[in-house]
Amino acid sequence: MNLTSDLYIVGIGPGNLKQLSREAYAILQEVEVIVGYQRYLDLITELISNQQLYSSGMRAEKDRLQKAISFARSGKKTAIISSGDAGVYGMAGPVLEYINQQKLELKVEVIPGITAANAAAALLGAPLMHDYAVISLSDILTSWTLIKKRLQAAAGADLITVLYNPRSSRRQSQLVTAQKIFLKVRSEKTPVGIVRNAGRQQQEIIITNLQEIPVQKVDMLTTVIIGNSQTYCQNDQLVTPRGYQL
Amino acid sequence: MNLTSDLYIVGIGPGNLKQLSREAYAILQEVEVIVGYQRYLDLITELISNQQLYSSGMRAEKDRLQKAISFARSGKKTAIISSGDAGVYGMAGPVLEYINQQKLELKVEVIPGITAANAAAALLGAPLMHDYAVISLSDILTSWTLIKKRLQAAAGADLITVLYNPRSSRRQSQLVTAQKIFLKVRSEKTPVGIVRNAGRQQQEIIITNLQEIPVQKVDMLTTVIIGNSQTYCQNDQLVTPRGYQL
Repeated sequence: MNLTSDLYIVGIGPGNLKQLSREAYAILQEVEVIVGYQRYLDLITELISNQQLYSSGMRAEKDRLQKAISFARSGKKTAIISSGDAGVYGMAGPVLEYINQQKLELKVEVIPGITAANAAAALLGAPLMHDYAVISLSDILTSWTLIKKRLQAAAGADLITVLYNPRSSRRQSQLVTAQKIFLKVRSEKTPVGIVRNAGRQQQEIIITNLQEIPVQKVDMLTTVIIGNSQTYCQNDQLVTPRGYQL
Repeated sequence: MNLTSDLYIVGIGPGNLKQLSREAYAILQEVEVIVGYQRYLDLITELISNQQLYSSGMRAEKDRLQKAISFARSGKKTAIISSGDAGVYGMAGPVLEYINQQKLELKVEVIPGITAANAAAALLGAPLMHDYAVISLSDILTSWTLIKKRLQAAAGADLITVLYNPRSSRRQSQLVTAQKIFLKVRSEKTPVGIVRNAGRQQQEIIITNLQEIPVQKVDMLTTVIIGNSQTYCQNDQLVTPRGYQL
């Protein structure tokens, strides 16, 4: 593969080398430097041979993107990775914002990946067959008022709703509030699917309903999908009908 | 690769063999039968060697899924394909619904793919960096009243909004109505990205704004992304800030 860009922002999918796109895999094999959060680098160790690696911790996004840009500007073909799709709560935004702010000349490409919503949905059956919303419950960078407004809108418009970052050791209450918002307008029995560590070792799948969400089992490695009013559960699978006559 | 299921429902991504997941590619190489809409089979001809192919036309979903199930039940390892992600307005739902209705015993697996929202976003920059809604404007299987309600909810809650099936030769007015709904609550200058034939030959990218959407250029092969109130356009790229201090 001929690397024509200087910097690649690569979504590695949910965390299983099989779920990388063929393009993402080829690029990561051929770049000279890969930059990423250590946990994500660990997920792709099998494809690493001579590439130089740079990692830093959670919330060190700015450090990582500066390093990646600096490697790329020094003439080394570089990739910076995100899990899932780099364009969904990932590194694509901050990298492009920084390059624009600093008015840097750099050829950059975003390589899409399978985001958690789609990976989790495939494991649960077919819950995302109709219109849906993707909402992060993390209020670190977004006001909780705005997040609640979005949850209310999604619930009221009967959108299937995928919750990213649903709960962490420091954010315990958001998922419970989200659950209450949905319970106001959607049946207690609305099917809910919970996927933890999609595609990774220790993958866990829970099929439950809106009333009975096992909140304690949800953490930052978890994606929660709340069905719409038509979603049903059969044979341990969630399916949202689209309306085909079958 | 060891094929342990009877039937695979495979998302082939936007239509470029590079954007298939490695797993999807391996499965399609190794199955005995591939079933799909002819246009999608055309997108993967390069990987076809000895697989038996079955195709039928648009709206013949039931015919295709019955054929795929019938091949699989006869003992042939079979894949049925959708473009993008099979779980997003694709074949995953109807196949699972039919199998459940008919109480068939069949080992089925959904193999996720890169859906149009993520493929288009990567080509546009990083518009999907915050909460978003995915809404199909096709009112063939869904009431237009419900679709409008969802558009109003997404617009009002400042969700980035991805429109699937935005316009066809028979559905000309829906995109214009969607535009009006957003213009009621969002600035005329809200950036809008339009991607036609993402990842395929004749790919086209248009960056415009809510007021100036070139409706005539939008068809069924097009994905439209309407930014939220924070999305901006710089260097022909759409970026939605997530709020990182850079």
